[in-house]
Amino acid sequence: MEVKRTAKETVSAKANAKSADWLESFSKRIEVKDTDYLRAFIEANHPADIAEVLEKLDEEEAFYVFRLCDSEKQSLILVEFDEDLQADLISRLNVHEISPIVENLETDEFTNLISEISKDKAEEILNSIDREDSSQIRKQLNFREYTAGRLMTTEFASAFETDTVRKAIIKLRRIAKETDDIYLLYVTDEENHLKGFIKLKDLFLAPLNQKVGRLVQEEVFSIHYDTDQEEVAKIFRKYDLVSAAVVDDLDRIIGRITVDDILDIVQDEASEDILRMGGVSEEERLNTSIWDSIRRRLIWLVINLGNAVLAASTVSLFEETIQSFVLLAALMPIVAGMGGNAGTQAITVVVRNIATGDLSPSNWGIGFRKECIIGVINGLTIGAISGLAVYFYLGKTALALVIFFAMLANLIVAAVLGASIPMLLRVLGIDPAIASSIFVTTTTDIFGFFCFLGLATLFLGYL
Amino acid sequence: MEVKRTAKETVSAKANAKSADWLESFSKRIEVKDTDYLRAFIEANHPADIAEVLEKLDEEEAFYVFRLCDSEKQSLILVEFDEDLQADLISRLNVHEISPIVENLETDEFTNLISEISKDKAEEILNSIDREDSSQIRKQLNFREYTAGRLMTTEFASAFETDTVRKAIIKLRRIAKETDDIYLLYVTDEENHLKGFIKLKDLFLAPLNQKVGRLVQEEVFSIHYDTDQEEVAKIFRKYDLVSAAVVDDLDRIIGRITVDDILDIVQDEASEDILRMGGVSEEERLNTSIWDSIRRRLIWLVINLGNAVLAASTVSLFEETIQSFVLLAALMPIVAGMGGNAGTQAITVVVRNIATGDLSPSNWGIGFRKECIIGVINGLTIGAISGLAVYFYLGKTALALVIFFAMLANLIVAAVLGASIPMLLRVLGIDPAIASSIFVTTTTDIFGFFCFLGLATLFLGYL
Repeated sequence: MEVKRTAKETVSAKANAKSADWLESFSKRIEVKDTDYLRAFIEANHPADIAEVLEKLDEEEAFYVFRLCDSEKQSLILVEFDEDLQADLISRLNVHEISPIVENLETDEFTNLISEISKDKAEEILNSIDREDSSQIRKQLNFREYTAGRLMTTEFASAFETDTVRKAIIKLRRIAKETDDIYLLYVTDEENHLKGFIKLKDLFLAPLNQKVGRLVQEEVFSIHYDTDQEEVAKIFRKYDLVSAAVVDDLDRIIGRITVDDILDIVQDEASEDILRMGGVSEEERLNTSIWDSIRRRLIWLVINLGNAVLAASTVSLFEETIQSFVLLAALMPIVAGMGGNAGTQAITVVVRNIATGDLSPSNWGIGFRKECIIGVINGLTIGAISGLAVYFYLGKTALALVIFFAMLANLIVAAVLGASIPMLLRVLGIDPAIASSIFVTTTTDIFGFFCFLGLATLFLGYL
Repeated sequence: MEVKRTAKETVSAKANAKSADWLESFSKRIEVKDTDYLRAFIEANHPADIAEVLEKLDEEEAFYVFRLCDSEKQSLILVEFDEDLQADLISRLNVHEISPIVENLETDEFTNLISEISKDKAEEILNSIDREDSSQIRKQLNFREYTAGRLMTTEFASAFETDTVRKAIIKLRRIAKETDDIYLLYVTDEENHLKGFIKLKDLFLAPLNQKVGRLVQEEVFSIHYDTDQEEVAKIFRKYDLVSAAVVDDLDRIIGRITVDDILDIVQDEASEDILRMGGVSEEERLNTSIWDSIRRRLIWLVINLGNAVLAASTVSLFEETIQSFVLLAALMPIVAGMGGNAGTQAITVVVRNIATGDLSPSNWGIGFRKECIIGVINGLTIGAISGLAVYFYLGKTALALVIFFAMLANLIVAAVLGASIPMLLRVLGIDPAIASSIFVTTTTDIFGFFCFLGLATLFLGYL
């Protein structure tokens, strides 16, 4: 009795997944093969919570628990894993074990999974399952990655315009048994051309013998299969959608996208932008291996090192000036650094506005003008503060003027580059988040050193 | 005929909103009060598209078009505006014009709007509307901002466990007329304690005289009203929810949150993090006024300036060393800058992992250890590259060793601080995105200068 109670308390993944002690005791249960406990754990928890726990275990341990689940639970857990763990698990299972798992997946999940594993294994799996399913997956694999065609599931509820509400409900019931998240009934003509949709709740309100065509909402949010996923996410956000139809070139419905996938995309795209702007080249999560992390960061550090050497060689042009007035060596990083800070601010705002779609090549002029005005005003302010500080604390008028003008010039350069480089990269098809900051801070470093030391050299006699 | 056709082509907001030419011609239509065209435009477009166009016009122009809409369309457009424009529009309307608009809003939208306008105006509006509505809004205003209580709408479909499916559908029909997005039927006992939910599609599958209690899905995702919106978003993402119930302290349902609000939160929180990490203190959009933008950025520039002065004063401690070996002035920014870059990488990854919930105080040790290892290895690599470059290009062995050790030490410091400061700030209740980078780059600047110039001073005889 006592044991049972303890088991019940510790069986909750949600409550315990973040506790290192609990995880350790869980590992121990696996080690001693306490299958009673583990089965109770699997039974009691949501697949997302189970997945969270398994991701924190050794791969061997995770695999042991995973094998204890039935195939339905296995598929629910599998889709929650990150890509590395998914691929690893699949490689440990033989085809006869995989088939029942993947057959429970929705087509988008299945396609996603197949695209991540080795070609041979993928082929083997596709040959082992129902032929209709596999031909569907093969078709979906032909769409470009990160487009609507890859995101969609092909399970959706639809009815013809000429159907009665009664008939539509019968069609809906059939599909409702297969798939879980149905929010809309799509309405098409007899050739599957999309005509609109009906919200499920409106079906409840309608008389059973009414024609479906009369209930249709005409604002159709149909998405072409080749639309980029970022664009798809924008459409969902703008129109507050829960589900949208995907159509082929002839405007015939071939699938639908649901909002839960969009939520993940918005989160992932934001993460990607944040990491790229911070100089980390690819998604890096807590469980990314140290070697992968190092590889992803080292490349940017080496590029930055090259840029720093460029900036340093600018400084070395002015060795004589520095020699005769060594205070300049202490002040020069201030001018360079402030340009970098102001440039980073401009880039951040512009890159974010590009990502959310507020800024595009057509209205770029507005953003550019704004950044320039901000650059001039912030340049005057920061230049004045620096100049006054030099004047009052060091009592040097000429040096105060040199730092004022150098700071002003560098902050204007930072603004101009910060506003234009991200847009330029975007037009060239390069992700502005990944490369903007390198260009801008290198330039503000070099220009900052050059401008400050150059002016100082010109007015060396007065310093 | 010709005119009509042209009007039809140019009436689409979706197609034209981003074209400057079209916007200009649209302004002209407003100027000449071409109400036929403008009404056709309003009729033909989705509220979200109309809002997008209006946000790009002068406030006077936007107000003119807004007034041409009926009150239902006005409320649909109003909720799409950003907060500034909402507040501005409300201030231009008198209470009798506002009441019919706000009465169409869902409670979360209404509460949100009321919280943004002046107290007097808010009071006036609340007194002008239906007493039941206004008492609901007043109640919701008592919840903390950015919590589930503020996000929820109080319009939701629910039924008692003991109801039959038939009775539940009748209840559902009643609420379905009032609110648009219903995906679940919540099931409670007679005291409104939440027992579970039923998906709408499952209601279609159920026999009409079955008891609702038998259909209930027991995995209840109920959210306490005081839960922070970031936490709410995590729950939605993790469990792929479309709608979740909000409960009071006694676990009674008081509202529900839908996924469209969550999509906005995920996007906004990500934007906030990105901007803060880039040194912009508050949300800054394309239509933020220049003065607001300057204010938001200048504060960080001034703080950075203070830090740069601190770093500069470190350099000035070593004026004699630089004087006798001026090449150090050119090399010192490299060591300082690389520390800043490596620190920024570590911060970015750690801050993002905190934001997504992967990293928390309980498993922080894992992240810390990883960052330290990365710091050592990247420090050795970058240090070795720099040292070898100095050795081969400048032919100075001692200087090569100085830069190697200074670089290694600075990158380790960067890693230690980059991994620990965000978590420390988080534990102190400060947003790690906003302040981490200031602390870390200042320290790596100062430490980089100190370490490099200090070592150089010690070994000056050998340089």
